[in-house]
Amino acid sequence: MNEKEISEVNRDFQKGLYTGISVFILLCVVGRSKEPIYGYQIAKIIEKDNEDIPIIKLGTLYPVLRSLEKNGLLESKVDPSVTGPPRRYYRITELGNQTLVELRKTWQRATTFIDSIMIGAENGK
Amino acid sequence: MNEKEISEVNRDFQKGLYTGISVFILLCVVGRSKEPIYGYQIAKIIEKDNEDIPIIKLGTLYPVLRSLEKNGLLESKVDPSVTGPPRRYYRITELGNQTLVELRKTWQRATTFIDSIMIGAENGK
Repeated sequence: MNEKEISEVNRDFQKGLYTGISVFILLCVVGRSKEPIYGYQIAKIIEKDNEDIPIIKLGTLYPVLRSLEKNGLLESKVDPSVTGPPRRYYRITELGNQTLVELRKTWQRATTFIDSIMIGAENGK
Repeated sequence: MNEKEISEVNRDFQKGLYTGISVFILLCVVGRSKEPIYGYQIAKIIEKDNEDIPIIKLGTLYPVLRSLEKNGLLESKVDPSVTGPPRRYYRITELGNQTLVELRKTWQRATTFIDSIMIGAENGK
């Protein structure tokens, strides 16, 4: 037997969980933004109230955004910035919005399922 | 651009999500069971009301159970079966129970976070 620290198991779980839902998180954040939004702004929204949890690192965020654009769920354009390098602004497409509706159903089904087995787990203790 | 079907994106999301939480699901199911429980019984509990979703395939379930035992979160013993091959029965350990408490907090924090960004996404539509 090779006992793992509880914190290590929890960290692995957290990492796997947020990796599994990163596409959903980014679609939600871009989808709810009234204006086109760039990577660093997205990261700030995700970090808000979650500074101690590395939900999506910046290095992961950009490739996921590019992949969502490649698949037609987001679109982007580059705008020059007065104060720094040009920024790529993202907005959700109609296909992205339709997809988000389905992902939301999948998420809600998963949480309902987990709630049902967690209630049992609490009773079993 | 390489548009993906909505159903394909959703299937990928669902797969990544359930893969990311498989350890949590199995700990919950074994943890809530009053009696030691074997793989096929666990699979049946998970499949209940979810027959159309491959949450955890049997081929994935057994390696995860073994890994949880190796890490000291579950323990098992083999009992001969009257009607078939011997069965390996799992029960949760004290370390497993302590870990489950932490994973549950991580899960609840993630759902609170997703709820907060989903509400924003609904308002933005």
